Parts: sequence; C-alpha cells; structure tokens
Amino acid sequence: MRRLINDGQNVVNEWIEGYTSAFNEYVEQDPDNPGVILGKHIADKHVKIIIGGGSGHEPLFPGYIGKNLADASVAGNINTSPSPQAVYEAIKKVDTGEGVLMLYGNYSGDCMNFDMAAEMAEDEGHKVDSLPITDDVFSAKNVSDRRGVAGDLIVIKAAAAAAAQGKNLAEVKAAAEMANRQTHSMGMALSSETNPLTGKEVFTMEEGDMEIGMGIHGEPGIKREKLKSADEVVSEMTDYILADMKTDENTQVYVILNGLGGLPLMDQFICYRKLAQILQEHKIKVYHALVGNYATSMDMIGMSITLAQLTPELQELLDFPCDAPYWRV
Amino acid sequence: MRRLINDGQNVVNEWIEGYTSAFNEYVEQDPDNPGVILGKHIADKHVKIIIGGGSGHEPLFPGYIGKNLADASVAGNINTSPSPQAVYEAIKKVDTGEGVLMLYGNYSGDCMNFDMAAEMAEDEGHKVDSLPITDDVFSAKNVSDRRGVAGDLIVIKAAAAAAAQGKNLAEVKAAAEMANRQTHSMGMALSSETNPLTGKEVFTMEEGDMEIGMGIHGEPGIKREKLKSADEVVSEMTDYILADMKTDENTQVYVILNGLGGLPLMDQFICYRKLAQILQEHKIKVYHALVGNYATSMDMIGMSITLAQLTPELQELLDFPCDAPYWRV
Repeated sequence: MRRLINDGQNVVNEWIEGYTSAFNEYVEQDPDNPGVILGKHIADKHVKIIIGGGSGHEPLFPGYIGKNLADASVAGNINTSPSPQAVYEAIKKVDTGEGVLMLYGNYSGDCMNFDMAAEMAEDEGHKVDSLPITDDVFSAKNVSDRRGVAGDLIVIKAAAAAAAQGKNLAEVKAAAEMANRQTHSMGMALSSETNPLTGKEVFTMEEGDMEIGMGIHGEPGIKREKLKSADEVVSEMTDYILADMKTDENTQVYVILNGLGGLPLMDQFICYRKLAQILQEHKIKVYHALVGNYATSMDMIGMSITLAQLTPELQELLDFPCDAPYWRV
Repeated sequence: MRRLINDGQNVVNEWIEGYTSAFNEYVEQDPDNPGVILGKHIADKHVKIIIGGGSGHEPLFPGYIGKNLADASVAGNINTSPSPQAVYEAIKKVDTGEGVLMLYGNYSGDCMNFDMAAEMAEDEGHKVDSLPITDDVFSAKNVSDRRGVAGDLIVIKAAAAAAAQGKNLAEVKAAAEMANRQTHSMGMALSSETNPLTGKEVFTMEEGDMEIGMGIHGEPGIKREKLKSADEVVSEMTDYILADMKTDENTQVYVILNGLGGLPLMDQFICYRKLAQILQEHKIKVYHALVGNYATSMDMIGMSITLAQLTPELQELLDFPCDAPYWRV
C-alpha cells in the first residue's frame, strides 16, 4: 500500500480531526458527532446548507464550508453514506429557523439516509428539503438517475449564495435545481483508489489501461481500453458532455478540470489546454476555470471535466463572494 | 506509465499553454519565450519578483503569480533549470526601473543560470538581485548549502508583499532573506515520480518502502526503510525540523503541510493532525496552516512539512492581501 496513514480503522476520525484542526478559523468538529463538521458562522440567520457523503473525496465536502458557502458537512466511512442520526444532529445544530437544504451526490445510500434524517428533523418542526446532485452525464440516460460528481461544487456554491442573500428555502432549492440542471460532468481513471481499511485497490486496473466514464467509486465506464493520449481522452469526454448540452454562440461555461487525487497538476493543465481548444472551436466561452483536486477519490489517478452552462442567475451566484478553506471568491 | 499526457517531448510547453489559458485573467505566456509566464499586472511600478525552476512542481511556480505576489515565472524542462536567456527576457519584460529580485530553490543549475541572466541584464542597466532559497533542513548542515522546497512559498510571499508595499530592492531582498532564515522544511516519499519523457520512474522504490528526508527530485534521505505509520513519520520529521529552530513559549508558526502530488488529501489531513498535536506539546502556536499540493514532484507520493517561525514583520508580510490562482490572502 502506498498510503501514509495510521490504523486503517481510524482514518475517518483522524482526517476529520486533522481537517478541523488545520482550519479551526472556519470549522469545528461537533464534539457529540465526530462525523459532523460545523462552520464557525452557523449563528448567521438564513437558510442553511448541509452537504455530505462518504469519506474519500477530500476536500469535498468540508473544504467548502465557510462564509457564504456550506454551513456543515457530514462524513460517512470510506465511500459510505453518513448515518441518518449524524445528519439529523447536523440539522439540529445549524437550523436557525429558516430551514435547511441538504445537498449530496445522487447515490442510493446517501438519498436514503439524508431522507430519513429529514423526516426525523421534520417531526421536531424543522423545515428541511434536499436535492441529490446528478451531474455525471455518462452515469445514466435519465438525468434523475445520474450520479453526482465534481458538479457538486457548482450546486453547493449556487445554493449557498442564494441562502446568504436571504432567499427562503423554496427559492434556495430552486437555485440549487437550476444549477444542477446547468451542470454536466464526466470522469475517467487510470487506476483504482486504495482502500485504507484493506490496504488494497478497490478494483484492478493494469498499468497502461484506462476507463473513460468511470465514476468516483470505480463505477464502470464505457470500456476498459489502452491508455490514449490526453488530447484523445479529453476530446472523447467533451463530445459526451457537449452532446448532453444545448449550446449556441452565446454559451458561456464555468469549468472545473478536476483531479481525482493521483493525477499530477501538470497533466491536468495539459488536459485543460485541449479542453479550452475544443470549447473555442465550438464557440463556447470559458467564463472562469478551476483546475485542481476539488473532488477526489483518494489516490485514484484520473480526472473529470465539469461544464456549468451559465445563466445570468447562475453567473451571479457563482460570482457571489465566499470564503472557505478550499474555495474563495 | 500512469500519466495522462500527449507526446512526452511536449509536456512543458503544453502544461504552460494549459495553465496560461485557464488563468488568463492573471497571466499570459510570453509569445517570444514559451517558458516565461508573465503576470497581467506587471505594469505596476515597484520592485518585481521573478521566480522559477524546473517543470514538474506545479502549481509552483506560476500558481503564485498574481497581484501582490510574484510577477513572472520561468520554467525549464522537467527538473531542469530554465535557460539564462529565458530568465534574462523575463527580467526585461517585468522591470519598470525599480529593479528585480529573483527567487529560486538552491540548486546548482538554477543558481548558475539565474546568475548569468542577472549579469546579462545588469549589462543593460537593470538592477537585479537574487536569493537561492534554502529551507530543506535535512539537505545539508550549512544553511547556505541547503536545497529549497515548499518553503519557497513563504519566501516568495514575504518578498512580494514587501515589493508591493513599495520597498526598494535592498529592502525587498532583506525581507526575502529574513523569511528564508525563519523557514524550515523536510520531506519524505513513498514512491518516485514518473518522468514523462521516458515514461519511467526516476528511481526505484518498492511498494511498502519509504524514505524520510528525500528531496523533491529524489535526492537521498536518511535511509530507505519499511513504511511506518503517519504518526511515526510526522514525529520523526518534526523532531528534525524543531532541532533546527530556536523556539520558546512565544513561538508562532505558519505551517505548510504539502502534498508532493500523489498523496491523498485524506492522508495529508491525518499527517497534519499529528503535526498539530506535536506543536501543541511543544507549546508552539499555529498561526495559520495550508494543507494541500503546493509544491509537487508530479506524481510522487509523499509530503513535506514546512514551519515558518513568525516574527512580527514576517507575520505582517504573510497576512498582506494577495491574489494568485493558487494562493489568495
């Protein structure tokens, strides 16, 4: 195993301890619920945004807790949804009466557990709503069946900006839904991630192979094939994403070229170069770009491309100032 | 090879094209010198900061070009100093008459080529000075013989803040020297990086082995040994670093827990957790912490720890607002 950890059984609590220690100006670990990370700003009165999912995608989720961004995150075990009880406790801690919107990737475990938490909290009078994020265009034909990947960032940012602007719960949810509709992603990988509990790869991928369309937990892609050039890979992925979008000569996109954890930033820039060329050929304007490890799969070597097609509203929400450890606008 | 590139011969120009395309609000590639990246703000009149070195350490160096940070960077080939000619061209492009300070890691090739560039530019009337950065405590006993690693960030930030404040070249250099004196780093690795030109590892390291003290190009560490726990590794590294510092109960440090490219952020947080505990035991206060891939060795799996011991002046320079793609204060 090429991981630098202690006992694999303790990784989740230890990474959260490390995170909350490093960024204690922004967050604290809930002493009653180790998987819950609370923003230091949660006394602010507005609709609150809770995000979360399995561990192993850092800096997603807690990296995006901060002023005008998310208010709390709830972490489960590696690639495993947090418990309903933990999410419920987070709701109770952050709700100042204006209600709570929960955002998470559209995975069955997350949907089930966040929903149960919402029911528990609603029984006690909290207003709670939720949106499973569905940006991975390759994961299903029906948008509502798709998984959430790095597009999470766009949806979280838009919803949190709307909340910070004082919008009510229905309006904040509408902003999140709009952002989710506009956001289209696709991933690829050259390797598995290493599960710290077993010390082994989650699945086997030979050196020199790759899989376009693969999900962040190793969900199957198009096919296992020999590694192509960065330009060919980016072209193929961008074709899939653009086929899912209605674009014209006025289209502007907010781009995330996201590293999955083990891919060097050098390679990410090389991929971004081709992506920018393709978008220019399609007369699509890049409004802003992020390049780096924003939503990872631990040490998985791979990347994803996210294109968020801007509306005037989405542009304004993405430009709204925010301040979190891994995203500042 | 588990890299996502095109022809290995083209990686340097392609990563720079991708970088300057993604962050074209901040920088542009010099059309006359492909390895030179110029800040969009270089018309500002103050002492200018040029940084640079071999490719393969992204986001170092260009990630730190921006308002109140560096003004230009010069990239060489993989792990190779840029040419004197390229550095000379960068000096001519950025100097507005107040002079130029060049900052780079203390490697013989960089020292030689930046020095030659300085001579060429001085012959034409430019005021140029330079400082090789020497933060790697393990790399040599004599401070002036040490290599520069992630502590580069601290020195660049301090010098650039002083320059932005309108200080003259001697004062800016004094700020850089002060920051360099206060900054102490050490690294470790579990793997080699993959050279994109050959597609092969630069050196061999078996899975399950590690080397504490290793440099960012694979320079030898203490000894090759079996992988220890994160807590043991961090303890051993912190002991070395603290032995190199004079601390007391008033000591405050600015911390960089830096991933070398392939180490998951989860593991970096687990390492940070132990580092914070050790510093607390020594009654050393963490003033601010950065955790992430700030100065990498492409896909090398490893990390480094940097402690910058604050003086009131250094603290003020590090807190001075700046805005670059990979560092915003």
